[in-house]
Amino acid sequence: MPSIEMAENEQVSPGVNQPTFREAVRTDLVQIVEMLADDALGAARERPGEPADPAYVDAFAAIERDPNNELIVVDADGEMAGVMQLTFIPYLSRTGSWRCLIEGVRIARSHRGRGLGGDMIRWAIERARERRCGLVQLTSDKQRPEALRFYGELGFVASHEGFKLQL
Amino acid sequence: MPSIEMAENEQVSPGVNQPTFREAVRTDLVQIVEMLADDALGAARERPGEPADPAYVDAFAAIERDPNNELIVVDADGEMAGVMQLTFIPYLSRTGSWRCLIEGVRIARSHRGRGLGGDMIRWAIERARERRCGLVQLTSDKQRPEALRFYGELGFVASHEGFKLQL
Repeated sequence: MPSIEMAENEQVSPGVNQPTFREAVRTDLVQIVEMLADDALGAARERPGEPADPAYVDAFAAIERDPNNELIVVDADGEMAGVMQLTFIPYLSRTGSWRCLIEGVRIARSHRGRGLGGDMIRWAIERARERRCGLVQLTSDKQRPEALRFYGELGFVASHEGFKLQL
Repeated sequence: MPSIEMAENEQVSPGVNQPTFREAVRTDLVQIVEMLADDALGAARERPGEPADPAYVDAFAAIERDPNNELIVVDADGEMAGVMQLTFIPYLSRTGSWRCLIEGVRIARSHRGRGLGGDMIRWAIERARERRCGLVQLTSDKQRPEALRFYGELGFVASHEGFKLQL
């Protein structure tokens, strides 16, 4: 997995540890679900608590056993600071190329506003290069204008409409 | 795999066979690549020809061995009429749910304008239900206004921006 590199113009506060990235393990699950629930859109959708709801346990097992899905946890200042899921997908199009899909990016409330999101996405891009992807893609809710601006600043192009259908 | 049901208000031309859906096999590859290349955006990106470019052979093998990726071919009137790829992804969010991602929807030139696209997306939605997905999602290039309208008519909501980053 890639080591994170800071952008040249980024400020590092003295005394704040660099974030570290790793694949989530089963004992992270309760805390990850708490992070998913601590969000305006997530609050209504999630069931946090200990022990973890069996639906989360099943989903975690499915992610863990799939070599093309990586659930990435970010630690900073000695605690869990963020989470995201990367999915690597082989396609025929573009002369047979892999893509990396980023989903479920969440940052713990106490770690917001410090540039951690940028670190996470830059790390994901490096990981996608390691896995020989030709394209990184994600969708972002139009109700989150700061997120839309953020991805634009990181070099992503909003060339597509992102359609969802609830079943 | 689901059998396709026609919408009530859909017209079936007499003498035109119903489309049939199946997973692609290795011997379909040359023809699928031809279909990918026969498109305004695809023409510059693809390398059609026989035998298939090794990059396509590798990508096909990766799709075939992954139980969470299904490359679906549609046959109509005795020939290959369309192709699409479905990816089934386990997520923790929404209380641990699977999603179906639809990509690479292509219809052979001689089969366009007959409602086949609607049949394909309705089939994909049924397949997503079979695989217990809670959500179907896709992105569509903003340069294709007819496609955007088409997905809206099928019940998809353009709630998200679709961001891409070329590597």
